Parts: sequence; C-alpha cells; structure tokens
Amino acid sequence: MTIKLDADGTVTNPEGFQVGTATCGLKSSGNPDLMLLHSKQSCTAAGMFTTNQVVGAPVTLNRETLKSNTKNMRAIVANSGIANACTGNHGLNNAIEMQNIASKSLQCKPNEVLVLSTGVIGVQLPMEKIDKGIRKASSNLSINGGYNGAEAIMTTDTNPKHCAVEINLPSGTVNIGGIAKGAGMVHPNMATMLACITTDALVPASILRSTLKTAVNNSFNKISIDGDTSTSDSVLILANGLSGISCAQGDSRKAFTDALISLSTDLAKQIVRDGEGVNKFVTVHVSGAPSIKEAHIVANSIATSPLVKTAFAGGDPNWGRIIVAAGKSGVRFDSSKTQLWIGSKIEDELQLVEQATPCDYDESIAQHIFSQPEFYIHLDLGNGKSEISVWTGDLTEEYVRINSDYRT
Amino acid sequence: MTIKLDADGTVTNPEGFQVGTATCGLKSSGNPDLMLLHSKQSCTAAGMFTTNQVVGAPVTLNRETLKSNTKNMRAIVANSGIANACTGNHGLNNAIEMQNIASKSLQCKPNEVLVLSTGVIGVQLPMEKIDKGIRKASSNLSINGGYNGAEAIMTTDTNPKHCAVEINLPSGTVNIGGIAKGAGMVHPNMATMLACITTDALVPASILRSTLKTAVNNSFNKISIDGDTSTSDSVLILANGLSGISCAQGDSRKAFTDALISLSTDLAKQIVRDGEGVNKFVTVHVSGAPSIKEAHIVANSIATSPLVKTAFAGGDPNWGRIIVAAGKSGVRFDSSKTQLWIGSKIEDELQLVEQATPCDYDESIAQHIFSQPEFYIHLDLGNGKSEISVWTGDLTEEYVRINSDYRT
Repeated sequence: MTIKLDADGTVTNPEGFQVGTATCGLKSSGNPDLMLLHSKQSCTAAGMFTTNQVVGAPVTLNRETLKSNTKNMRAIVANSGIANACTGNHGLNNAIEMQNIASKSLQCKPNEVLVLSTGVIGVQLPMEKIDKGIRKASSNLSINGGYNGAEAIMTTDTNPKHCAVEINLPSGTVNIGGIAKGAGMVHPNMATMLACITTDALVPASILRSTLKTAVNNSFNKISIDGDTSTSDSVLILANGLSGISCAQGDSRKAFTDALISLSTDLAKQIVRDGEGVNKFVTVHVSGAPSIKEAHIVANSIATSPLVKTAFAGGDPNWGRIIVAAGKSGVRFDSSKTQLWIGSKIEDELQLVEQATPCDYDESIAQHIFSQPEFYIHLDLGNGKSEISVWTGDLTEEYVRINSDYRT
Repeated sequence: MTIKLDADGTVTNPEGFQVGTATCGLKSSGNPDLMLLHSKQSCTAAGMFTTNQVVGAPVTLNRETLKSNTKNMRAIVANSGIANACTGNHGLNNAIEMQNIASKSLQCKPNEVLVLSTGVIGVQLPMEKIDKGIRKASSNLSINGGYNGAEAIMTTDTNPKHCAVEINLPSGTVNIGGIAKGAGMVHPNMATMLACITTDALVPASILRSTLKTAVNNSFNKISIDGDTSTSDSVLILANGLSGISCAQGDSRKAFTDALISLSTDLAKQIVRDGEGVNKFVTVHVSGAPSIKEAHIVANSIATSPLVKTAFAGGDPNWGRIIVAAGKSGVRFDSSKTQLWIGSKIEDELQLVEQATPCDYDESIAQHIFSQPEFYIHLDLGNGKSEISVWTGDLTEEYVRINSDYRT
C-alpha cells in the first residue's frame, strides 16, 4: 500500500472528471474567470465552509444543496473576480441562477451542481456574462482541463495551485486530485480560500464527509496568512467511484484518509507560499501543551502576531516576541518552563530559550536560520504532551502595499 | 462642578509630587532613560497590569508590593530601553534591587516603591548603571519634572505623552496628572504601554482601585495598534491627599471617576496617534450588540484586522472587509441586519451598507472621508442595544519597516 504525490496532478487525474473554462470578463486582467468541473458519473459529495458569520451567497446555497443531496452530485461551477458576498437576496438569486444555467448546460438537476465564487465583496454578478461563460465552458470540457481550471479560479494568486495523489491498494489503484486558490485573508482563507477535490474512489457520503473534516482540520485549518477569514472559504469533494475500489473501511479507508490529508496539506502549503507579500515559509510547532486545541490556539497566536511576522520579514530571531505572542493567547502555562528552538532543518536546530531565559547561543547562527526562505520555530510550553504544527508566512511591506491598493 | 483638561499638564501638576530623571545609557539614542516619581506624603496606590501570561519582573514585583501595601506608597522608579522581561530569577532580583536602591535614595521602605521597565525583552539590566541613574534622579527631583519624566520613559515613541485635569468641586480643587508611553504592541500595550497617574485627592485605596479599573476599561483597554499585548503593560496611580479634598463618595467620587476617565482616554488616544507607523486615527464604533462585551469583541475584531487596517492606510472605503472582520469575531449576529456608516464628523456621515447590502452612495465622498487623518466607522449589528467605541490606527508599510528593523 503506497501513496504517491504528483505535483503536476489536478482534479482531472481521477477517472471520469472533466474541466472546462471560460473568460466572462469579471477580472480587470482579462484572464479566464470561470471553471466548470463535471463528472460523467454521479458522485457522493461533501463540503466544509467558512466559520465567518457573514457568508457569501454560494456558501448559503451549497449548504442547502448538500442538505438535500450528497449522493448524486455531478458538477461544480466556479467564478473568480466577484465573490457574490454581501449581495443580499439578489446575490442569492444569482447563485441559484448559476446553478440552473450549469445544470441545463450539463443536462442534470440543479441540486446536482455546487457553486463557488471568489473575488471582490459587495458587487453583483453580471449574469449575462456568467451565462455565456458557463455555456462556453461546458462546450470545452476536457479530461486535460484541470490545470486551466486551477488558473481560472485565481484572484490575487500568482500561480495556480494543484496536485494529485495515487493510492496503490491491494485491490487496485485509486486517485485523488485537487485544485485550490489563496491568497490573502487566509486563516484559513480569502480573498477567499477555495479548494475542489475529486476522487474516483468509492466512498459513501457519510464517510466522505468525516474524512474531509479530518483532512481539512489537518491542513487548511492549520494555515494563516493574516488572521482574517473570508465569507466564502469552501472545500468541496466529489467521489464518483469509477475506480470500482471501495475506500469505505479498514486499511483502504485509512489509506484514503492519509492520502487526502497529504493532498490537502500540499495544497494548503502552496497557498501559504503564495500568500500576499509572503517571502518566507515558516512552520510554527508548539509542543508541551495540555491539549491539541490549546496547542493550536498558542500556535495561531504566534502565527498571526504582527510583531512575530515582521520579525520573520526582517530576518530578526527576536524570540521575545514569540514567547510574548504565546503569552497573549489566553492559554494558561507557566512561562518559567518554556523552551524555544529554531532551525531550517533538524541538523542545524538551535536552542534560544530554556526555562524562559535566553540560552548562550551564537546570534549569527540564529540570524542565518531566520534569513532562510523556509525555517521553523518550536516552542515547548512544558505543560503537557500535545503538539501541533501550523504554517504561516512573514508580514512584509509588500503585503501592506497589495492590500492598500486592492480596490483603488 | 467642572472638569478642565490641561494638555500641557503632567504627573507633577497635583500638589506634592516631584520627578527626577537621569541617563543611565540603556538606549542607543543616548536619551534619558530613568525616571523617579516621588510624593512628599504617603499615598494610597493601585495598579492594573497586562493580561499576558508572560510578564516582566516588575509586574511580578508590583503585584507582590501592592498585596502588602496600598496605603503608604511613596514612589515609582521607571527605566526605558530594557524591559526586564524573560529574564528569570536574575531579572526578578534586579527589579527588587531597583526597588531597594530607590527606597534608600528616598529614605523610605522598599515596599513603598513601585517599579517599571520598558524596552527590549530578554536582556538583563546593567545594575551599576541603574544604581547611578537612580541616585542621580533622586538628586534632581523637581515639581516641574513631569515633562522630563514623560520623555525618560519613551522607547519607540516619537513624542512624550502627558496631560492633567483639574476638578473644581464645591469643597475645593483637586488635580490629577498623568504620563504614558506607547507605541507598538499596543492592545493595549508594548514595546509596552506604561502610564503613571498622580492625584492630590483624598481617595481610600479600595475606591482608588475600583475607580482605576473603571477608567482603564474605558480608555487604555479600548485602544489597539497591532493586537499584540506586552509583558509589562502597567497603569499605576498614587493619591497623596494633599488637596485635603475627599473624593470617596457621592458627587465628588463621581467627578473624580469622570475626570480619571477623561485623563486616561486622552493619554490612550495620544498613544494611538503615536502608534508605530500610524498615519490615521480611526474610531471604530459598534452598536446594536446584545452586550457591551460582545460589542467590544466585534469592535476589536475590526480594529485588529490587517485587511481593514491596510484599507485605512490606502484610503480605500472597502466596507466589505469591515463587515467580514465583524463576522470572524465569533459573536453571533444576523448579517442581513447590519448597517454601516462612515464619517469624519457627524455632518458628513455617509451610509454605505443597509441590511448587509451596499447603499447607492457616492464613492468619491467615501474616499474623501477615508483620506482624512481622523475618521470613524460605525457598524450597527441590529441585534441589541449595547454599543462601544475603540480607537485604532492604520497598518502601513512604515509599521512593517519599524518592526522588521527593531533589533537589528
């Protein structure tokens, strides 16, 4: 039983999935902005959505759709450029209209289509353009369309995000493929984080849902660009069963779960690497916590601290800011027991803090580590056995520039 | 009964308080870095400290001191340049040593002295320099020393922060004076937020404490620069009673509370205005919340959102980001009921959002408001009667520059 990651893979790697794209003219760049993902056979489906109280119309609609149908899904239609969020009833009607247009083009039922939108908030979709775009995309559906689909859902992303995994089971081979987009407002999330995942494994809807939840909690929910969450974050998965291989129980279910975590983690890390203004990829590992939940809260507190993230940007191993960011998290710990290490790989790990006081370390080595494009920090709270890693980037002047200029 | 604010006032406005200063050489700038505040008569005292789990040695020491003595306080000794935080037992002994040196210089008991330190974390205080500095400062105590004291506690602040209020009661006149420092890590707080407040009113220690708590909750706890909290944030108040006027009950107590809130609010706003990289002063008002606490959580979520704060910096009235930042706060509300106004003063108030959808407003007027050095945003959640204002600034490239370069 092996799991093989394919960095060039996409949602069209699994059997029976096709993607078509179109340019509706929703983005000032004039780049493709519409994607249609279709399965030639009915799929089980699951979705996870933003925890923000304010949600885009597609999130509202998908939640409804998945209430009535998780066993006969056929397609996902997605546009970039306009988020269809904060758009009231008019916006909800437009999302329903997108679903209707796609279902007509694909000759399926409306509730067999899921809808995604990402981009600017508070602007209504131009439905005539969307209508043309969906019909165009349905005319160029292709089993090689996955990469184009990844491009069509980009907003401030600088590159498309995609990968696939192949699972070799004793009973045969199963594929999972994914595409995603970032890039700001990721916590995990926006100018919306979206991910579409496909698989030809045979997975009952209820198991698909719990497996997706596990995978998302171990991947997309562990990344942070700026601590802001969006109205539209969504991860959708469709399983069409065309491999004929069941992943419903036992070893094959476990392999499927592991593979889905691998794929999701790879996509999540791609999102951080392409985060707005991000020059450095930093793993924040917190150990010695009383629970996973508390480890996660402390890690997020560090990963979202502007003072920590500007220190990353400046290549300044300012460990005081890291300890203090942990201290503000609200999680109780005895600061006199904290230890801190940094490293770009295990071999050059350097301990900076022991029992809350600075070690006698070589500052130039610490600076060298913080000057690398990828490094990690490891904080031990000395108060338990739970640990977690989250992934984040630095906070640069470029981030501020991108987000000061976004609309104007 | 009137309350008069004196923008030029300081901690030496109230009768019987003197300040001395010195340059120990703790700051690379070579500017004064030590302040000694002394009352010629014993004071009741109260303090409020950081909620961060990781606290500087002076915070630990002051909490101990105030456990044993709130009725006979005589002095505050403060240094800038080094925070004496994350310095272990050695650091705690140094804080105790500062207290001892000051008490000897002033001929009082050690537990009649409170201690403050602000600056870099993880570095031990050079006690020989501190010793000389305290003795020097005690030799130049002056009733005109307040302004110099405000300068001596600055770190990345660009100007000293101070003010005073005069309360005219039927029974006579009472004064309150304060000095403070910011400027980054304010939530409320660091490279530490410190404030020293003095008064010649006669106030029992228990009432002083509850009044200080009320004032801090309505001022310093309503400001945010970057959402980071420090190890050392402290607000101290000394009341020496030399006016002979009691503010222990009735109208005079109420007037004293109001005056202390005014003074603290003025100091808090000075800190935001001088926040690292801050070019704009923004009041975030949230109304229609089920409770003050929930209004505060929503307001803080907006005031600390990098996407909102970069929109402030860019002069971009990107209301979607404001609504979405409210949505991520965890406070439940019905987003379809939200309303949003912006303005630089009441007369030019502009409604941007009604029932979660954009109004038909003039974008150029909205941009004009966001281009002002001071403006407010007002979000109504439509879910209750509680409201609150918090004060924050924009997030600029300069903030990132300052904090990337801080130590290196």
